[in-house]
Amino acid sequence: MKTNLKRIQKDIENLSKFNATPDCGLTRFSFTKEDRLAREYIKEEMRKAGLYVYEDAVGTVVGRLEGKDKDASIIMVGSHYDSVKNGGNFDGPAGVSMALEIARTMKDNNVQVKYPIEFLALIEEEGGRFGIGLFGSRGMVGKLTRNELDQHKDVEGISIAEAMKNFGFDPDKIQEAIRKPERTKAFFELHIEQGPVLEHNVKDVGIVECIVGIRHLEVIIKGRPDHAGTTPMNMRRDALDAAATVISQISNIAKKAEKGTVATVGVLEVLPGATNIVPGEVKFTIDIRSKDENSIDQVIKDIIDALKKEAKEKRICYTNAEKLRVSPVKLDEDIIKKFNKNCKKLGFSKVDMLSGAGHDAMMMAEITKVGLVFVPSKDGRSHCPEEWTGYKDLQKGIELVYHTILDVAEVVKNED
Amino acid sequence: MKTNLKRIQKDIENLSKFNATPDCGLTRFSFTKEDRLAREYIKEEMRKAGLYVYEDAVGTVVGRLEGKDKDASIIMVGSHYDSVKNGGNFDGPAGVSMALEIARTMKDNNVQVKYPIEFLALIEEEGGRFGIGLFGSRGMVGKLTRNELDQHKDVEGISIAEAMKNFGFDPDKIQEAIRKPERTKAFFELHIEQGPVLEHNVKDVGIVECIVGIRHLEVIIKGRPDHAGTTPMNMRRDALDAAATVISQISNIAKKAEKGTVATVGVLEVLPGATNIVPGEVKFTIDIRSKDENSIDQVIKDIIDALKKEAKEKRICYTNAEKLRVSPVKLDEDIIKKFNKNCKKLGFSKVDMLSGAGHDAMMMAEITKVGLVFVPSKDGRSHCPEEWTGYKDLQKGIELVYHTILDVAEVVKNED
Repeated sequence: MKTNLKRIQKDIENLSKFNATPDCGLTRFSFTKEDRLAREYIKEEMRKAGLYVYEDAVGTVVGRLEGKDKDASIIMVGSHYDSVKNGGNFDGPAGVSMALEIARTMKDNNVQVKYPIEFLALIEEEGGRFGIGLFGSRGMVGKLTRNELDQHKDVEGISIAEAMKNFGFDPDKIQEAIRKPERTKAFFELHIEQGPVLEHNVKDVGIVECIVGIRHLEVIIKGRPDHAGTTPMNMRRDALDAAATVISQISNIAKKAEKGTVATVGVLEVLPGATNIVPGEVKFTIDIRSKDENSIDQVIKDIIDALKKEAKEKRICYTNAEKLRVSPVKLDEDIIKKFNKNCKKLGFSKVDMLSGAGHDAMMMAEITKVGLVFVPSKDGRSHCPEEWTGYKDLQKGIELVYHTILDVAEVVKNED
Repeated sequence: MKTNLKRIQKDIENLSKFNATPDCGLTRFSFTKEDRLAREYIKEEMRKAGLYVYEDAVGTVVGRLEGKDKDASIIMVGSHYDSVKNGGNFDGPAGVSMALEIARTMKDNNVQVKYPIEFLALIEEEGGRFGIGLFGSRGMVGKLTRNELDQHKDVEGISIAEAMKNFGFDPDKIQEAIRKPERTKAFFELHIEQGPVLEHNVKDVGIVECIVGIRHLEVIIKGRPDHAGTTPMNMRRDALDAAATVISQISNIAKKAEKGTVATVGVLEVLPGATNIVPGEVKFTIDIRSKDENSIDQVIKDIIDALKKEAKEKRICYTNAEKLRVSPVKLDEDIIKKFNKNCKKLGFSKVDMLSGAGHDAMMMAEITKVGLVFVPSKDGRSHCPEEWTGYKDLQKGIELVYHTILDVAEVVKNED
């Protein structure tokens, strides 16, 4: 191995300290104190690796290594360092450590390449704070509007725009973060698998061929808040009764759609939310994913049919709003070929796989060729304190991306 | 009508002025400035009606009318004048106005009766300030300990005992408020229905036969929090899927149990509560009420059967804990007969009904015969600023209680 296991471990362990919920998993939302501390660590590591460090207009941390050809299009590599609420230490940081370790290894070996490389630590990929994910990569591909920065707010009512200002960024300048496709050569991401496939098959790395499409819906059901003691069952308009009836059907609706389709209700709120009041309003989210957009459409149609039936039978009203729509993304065939060649060269075992999770790679595919490598997740667990990837497993993934980046960036000098 | 509509309206309107949240519904907690002002109004009205006014040892306002037989057991009549937070003008005060108007009407007509009558304005029935309700009536039936006065505190950390002292009552003397069953002949309460039944059936009054028993359960379902994209549907242990399947059956379970049984899931929380995480835990409350405890037991058994089925099929675990248990209370059959006779005499239409909410009447039934009359609630609404009862509707309820009290109290002289 060219890369250094101890440094990788140190990155993960250090980043895990910048945490709003110690002893309760890792919680690191963006534009917070924990973001600030993690950001300083990352910038310092980038500086030590000899990179030119800056932050783009939406807040992503960038460390730039000049290429021999300064005007050549840019190769980007990295992942995000925010987390979900009460998540783990690897979802995101594994790929940030990858970026840092590749930069350090290139410096160690005095490697010079033709193309400039920008090492990225992206923000708010999870959407944990404001409910809008892939934030840093959206900014890069121009899928973020000034309006959205006012619309999306955290639980305390602080908008993205306000949070950015408080943190030192100017929400009116987000357009400056946009990357031009013709100035971008490729994007490489490494991520933990967040599923059981690699561990189950005892393989070193996953080479991702396709990222599933995602649709997020928000459903609001309105009934009437009545006294739980004085309102006979047949005179109620119980929003939760209707919501529960629809939600209980969603698992079978997703199974019926096939093609690896999954659907999840992860957030549900009841108003007014008192033991002795019939729920007057229920709001819930639905997350639907598939490699086939027709399957997603079918799931939504079936859910809306179920809502219509409830509206008629239980005298409730509902609205449903699409909050996220991402099409399935095929990853770059040429990069996949290079990953396969380097796997063979390095003696790593691999699985060709789908990504069931969205990643910044998905957004970046809008403007450039993308390669995505998975490393194993213990017990397939993720987004929880138990999330774990062995450091040696992580190093193999980093090593694979390192060798492939050198191929794409065209090595001019390597004193290894 | 013997009673006076304008005086009733004036009571409700005057009492509504003693309010901690003007323009945001009525908020009148006990042992506060608003209590003091309302109390002075009530005492003044009692004095004007010729009653001997005092406050009992827990703080209830009492206006006493001597009976011809001074040693006879006491008839009590009234309701409470505290409110929930941001409630309405009728829940409580309707029955206080009833007490005042009956006293005034008796004075107008120079009515003398055999039994002494004590007109009551009870406090803290809602438990809005300290989280313990039925406070005045608990004090009368001896279901209040000195210890509880220290335990229960308001949002500012002031205990009941401290609040009582600051207001001029001695918390060490609450035992003096206890009424002896053998010295108590009956208790009459009038209350707004807080439900839609009278309005829906276009009836003047409700004659309550029974106050329902209440059981509160808290159910916790534990599954496994997995990534919403990478976990196939058939490998999930989704706590919300299981909860929704159970909750969607509860309406039919309650209907099947008959005997006016109702069941409500009013609070539901999802953990970790993120769009893209399969719910690992769901906690929800169930409020079950019926006039028949066997029906409540049956509802709980059916819900637990549904939980067991989910536990087996969806590999979740669950716990259920009883948080509240109140037995049903039958109201006095002889008083009910008299209500029915007087309804006919006065030409009022009536419904025999259950009370789905707890009332001071429920507590008073521990020591004496109790009669409870409901008057219609507009749109069945209560505990909200929109709470409304037409003054003419209220007057009919008052008239019914007036005539029935005269029957029970045995008129000696009536110059009407």
